[in-house]
Amino acid sequence: MSDRPALPGQMPNAFVPGQGNLSPEDQALVARRQAAMGPAYRLFYETPVHLVRGEGVWLYDAEGQAYLDTYNNVASVGHCHPRVVEAMARQAAVFASHTRYLHEGILAYSERLLGHFPPALSHVMFTCTGSEANDLALRIAEAHTGGTGIIVTENAYHGVTRAVAAMSPSLGAGVALGENVRVVPAPDPLRLEGDLGQAFAGHVQAAIGDMAAKGIKLAALIADTIFSSDGVIADPKGFLAPAVAAIRKAGGLFIADEVQPGFGRTGEAMWGFQRHWLVPDMVTLGKPMGNGYPVAAVVMRPDVVAEFGARARYFNTFGGNAVAAATANAVLDVIEDEGLMENSRVVGAHLRQGLEDLAKRHECLGPIRSAGLFVGAEIVEGGDPLAADAGFAAKVVNRLREARVLISATGPRANVLKIRPPLVFSAENADLFLDRLDTALAR
Amino acid sequence: MSDRPALPGQMPNAFVPGQGNLSPEDQALVARRQAAMGPAYRLFYETPVHLVRGEGVWLYDAEGQAYLDTYNNVASVGHCHPRVVEAMARQAAVFASHTRYLHEGILAYSERLLGHFPPALSHVMFTCTGSEANDLALRIAEAHTGGTGIIVTENAYHGVTRAVAAMSPSLGAGVALGENVRVVPAPDPLRLEGDLGQAFAGHVQAAIGDMAAKGIKLAALIADTIFSSDGVIADPKGFLAPAVAAIRKAGGLFIADEVQPGFGRTGEAMWGFQRHWLVPDMVTLGKPMGNGYPVAAVVMRPDVVAEFGARARYFNTFGGNAVAAATANAVLDVIEDEGLMENSRVVGAHLRQGLEDLAKRHECLGPIRSAGLFVGAEIVEGGDPLAADAGFAAKVVNRLREARVLISATGPRANVLKIRPPLVFSAENADLFLDRLDTALAR
Repeated sequence: MSDRPALPGQMPNAFVPGQGNLSPEDQALVARRQAAMGPAYRLFYETPVHLVRGEGVWLYDAEGQAYLDTYNNVASVGHCHPRVVEAMARQAAVFASHTRYLHEGILAYSERLLGHFPPALSHVMFTCTGSEANDLALRIAEAHTGGTGIIVTENAYHGVTRAVAAMSPSLGAGVALGENVRVVPAPDPLRLEGDLGQAFAGHVQAAIGDMAAKGIKLAALIADTIFSSDGVIADPKGFLAPAVAAIRKAGGLFIADEVQPGFGRTGEAMWGFQRHWLVPDMVTLGKPMGNGYPVAAVVMRPDVVAEFGARARYFNTFGGNAVAAATANAVLDVIEDEGLMENSRVVGAHLRQGLEDLAKRHECLGPIRSAGLFVGAEIVEGGDPLAADAGFAAKVVNRLREARVLISATGPRANVLKIRPPLVFSAENADLFLDRLDTALAR
Repeated sequence: MSDRPALPGQMPNAFVPGQGNLSPEDQALVARRQAAMGPAYRLFYETPVHLVRGEGVWLYDAEGQAYLDTYNNVASVGHCHPRVVEAMARQAAVFASHTRYLHEGILAYSERLLGHFPPALSHVMFTCTGSEANDLALRIAEAHTGGTGIIVTENAYHGVTRAVAAMSPSLGAGVALGENVRVVPAPDPLRLEGDLGQAFAGHVQAAIGDMAAKGIKLAALIADTIFSSDGVIADPKGFLAPAVAAIRKAGGLFIADEVQPGFGRTGEAMWGFQRHWLVPDMVTLGKPMGNGYPVAAVVMRPDVVAEFGARARYFNTFGGNAVAAATANAVLDVIEDEGLMENSRVVGAHLRQGLEDLAKRHECLGPIRSAGLFVGAEIVEGGDPLAADAGFAAKVVNRLREARVLISATGPRANVLKIRPPLVFSAENADLFLDRLDTALAR
C-alpha cells in the first residue's frame, strides 16, 4: 500500500548518531543524551540544532543565531508568548489543583471552548496530551458502541500510548498494529482514482466489511482532518463526508483528531472538520491548546459519553488543573485578539502562492496542498508528481536547517515538506522562507 | 477476594449529585460542571469544596476559609511554592520546546534525577503523567520479554490510559481488566497468613502458574511500593523481595510504581522500593515530580529498553520539554534545601505516634500503617481490626471536611483513612490534624 521506511522505527529527518557536523560541545550533549535518555529518542536533522531561546517565530541557538521556525505548531501563538506565560505563572502562584474540587477556571474555559463547537458537541473532558485524548476517545467509543474495531489511514499518527500506538502505522513496522485495527489508503488526490470522497469511502467500506467478516465489531473511524502524517491533504473540501456517512451507517463513530489542525491553523475555521461540512461524534485536541503547556481534551456529544460515564469515572491528576485552564484560556485570548486565524488564512494564501510560483521554476517541487498555515509540498523526481523523492526532500530539509530555517518532511514516502509555522508567521517571514527554499531546491 | 464497592465506577468519598449542603453559588458550579464536563467526573466529599487559593499546606475556599491539606501529594513541596513557580515561569518565558532539539536543561535534570537511583538504573524517559509513564513501562516490558502477562494487586491503581486502566482493578467492575492481567491479593498484613513476603510471593507464583497454563507469556509484576489504593502497606520492610525474586525467576520484570511514594515521601529514602532492599527493573514517577506541572518519567536499566529502542522511537511532545525540566529541577532543589525527606520522616513519626495514642481511646481507629508522611489508618467496628467500616470512614472524612481538614479514604474496603499531606507538613500541622480527628472519631 505504501513504501514505508524499511527500517522499523525509522522516521523522516532523524539524526543518525555518528553523522553530521556537530561542534565538540554539541557532540558532548548528544553523548550525554544517549547515556541518560537511552536509545528510543530521536533528534531532528543530520546536524541537530541546539536551542536556548524562542520568541515569536524565531528560535535561537547557543551561539545566538536565529532560526526561522516554519515547523512547530505547538507554540502556535508564538514561542514564549508573554501573555500566555504570564497567565500560567499568575495562576500557578495562586492555585494549581485538580478537578475533584470545584474551581471556576476550568468551567469558564470549558464553556468558552465548547462555544467554538457545534451545539451538539457539548461535553469536554481534559487530559494532558493528545495521546491521552485519543486514548480516552478510544475508551469512550468502545463503551458507546460495544465494539473495538478502529479504522485509520495508512500513515496515520495518533499518539504513543499502547492503545494509540497500535493504531498509528506511521510509527513503523516495529510497533505492531492491533488486531482490531484496519488500515485504509489515505485520501491521496494523487493516487486514489475518481471522486476522492467516494474513493476514500470505498476503502473505508471495504475495511468495515473485512472487520465484519472477521467478527470484529466496529467502534470508530479516526482521522486527522488535515492528514498531516499522510502528507497533508486538505482538498477538495468535504471529501471526508462520504466516509463518515459510511462509518455511521455501520454503527461506528467518527473521531476527528484535531491535535494538529485545530485552534485556527487551517485559516478558515477553528477546526479542520469544519472544512468538511460535518459534525464529528468526538473531537480530540492537543498540541497548540496551551502553547506548550501540557493540556489536551476530548469534546463529544453527551450520548456518546453516557455509557462510559455510567460505568467508569475519569480522573486525570493534571488534566484540566487550574493552571492548564488559565493557560489554555490565554491562548484563546491571543488567537482572538491578535486575529491569528485570519492571519493564518491570509499569510497561508501568500505562502501558497509563493510556493506555486517556485514550483514553476523547480520541477522537483511537485503538488502543493494546504489550508491556512498548514502546507504540504511534494518533492518529486523529474517533474512527475507520482515520483516521490524522499532523498532529495531530506536534502532540502537539511539545507534549510543549514540556512537556519526549521522545517521537516512527512508522508508515507517521506517526501512531503511539512510547513507548519507558529500562526504569528508574517508575509515577510513567508518571503524569507520562500527565498531560502528557492536556494535549497537547486538540484 | 475483596468486598469491592458494588456499584461499578463507585469511588470512596465521591460527591453524589443532589446531596450535600451546597451554597446556591456552589450548586450553580456543580450544574455548570455537569453541563460542560459530563458524567465521568467526580467531586470529593458529600459537600464538595470550592477552592480558590493554595499556599504551603493550606487551601482556601471562596469565602477565604482555610483548609488544612492532609491529602494532596501532588503539591508535595507545598501548594504554589514560589521557587517552583518562579523556575517554571522563568523557563517558559525563554524556551519551552521539545526533546527533538538539543537542550541542556533536560540533560542536567536527567543526570541529577538518575543520581538518586542505583547505578544500574541509568536511563530515563519522560512523559507528562503517571498514566503515560506506566503505559510506556508496559510497552517497554512487552518488547523486552516478548510477553504480555501483567500481575497487579487486588485494588491497584496505575492510571487511566486504556492499557493501564485494564490493569487497575480499583477503577471498579465497570472497567474490564485485560485478559493478560492477573490480580493477586494485596500484601495485607491483617489478612495474609504467615510471613507476609512469602505469602504474597505465593500468590504471585500462583498467578505466574495460571498464566503459563493459559499460554500467556509473562511480562511484569507492577506494584505501587506503598500500596496506596490497597490501603497503604509499608511494613515489614523487605516484604516485596520474595515476590520480585519469583517474577524474575519466571522471566518477568518488576516495575516499581513510585508515582505516589516517590520523591522522599516515605521519609527514609527517595523511593519506596528502597525500603524493600531491592532494585526494580523499571521505576515509574509522576505526581509530585513537578509539584503540579504535568511531568512524569520512566527510569530503567539500559538492557530493559534496548529492544524497545531498536524497534520503536519514542516522542512525547510535551514530555521532558524545557519547562518540565526546569520545574522538576526546582522541585529537587526544594526537597534538598528544605530537608523535606527528613521532615517527612520526623513529622511522619510524630503523626504516627499521635495516631497510635488516639487509637488507644477510639476503638474505631484500627491498625495504622505508615512510612514518613504516607499513612493509612483503618476505621473498624467494635475494635475488631478485620471489621472494616467504610460507612464510618466516610463519616469521618466528611466530618473532617466540615472541620476544614482535607483527607480521603482508600483501600479495597474503602475504610482506610489516607493521610498524605504536602511534605512541608509541620508537627504543629500534625497536632491540629490529630485534634480535629479526635473529634471526628466520636461515634
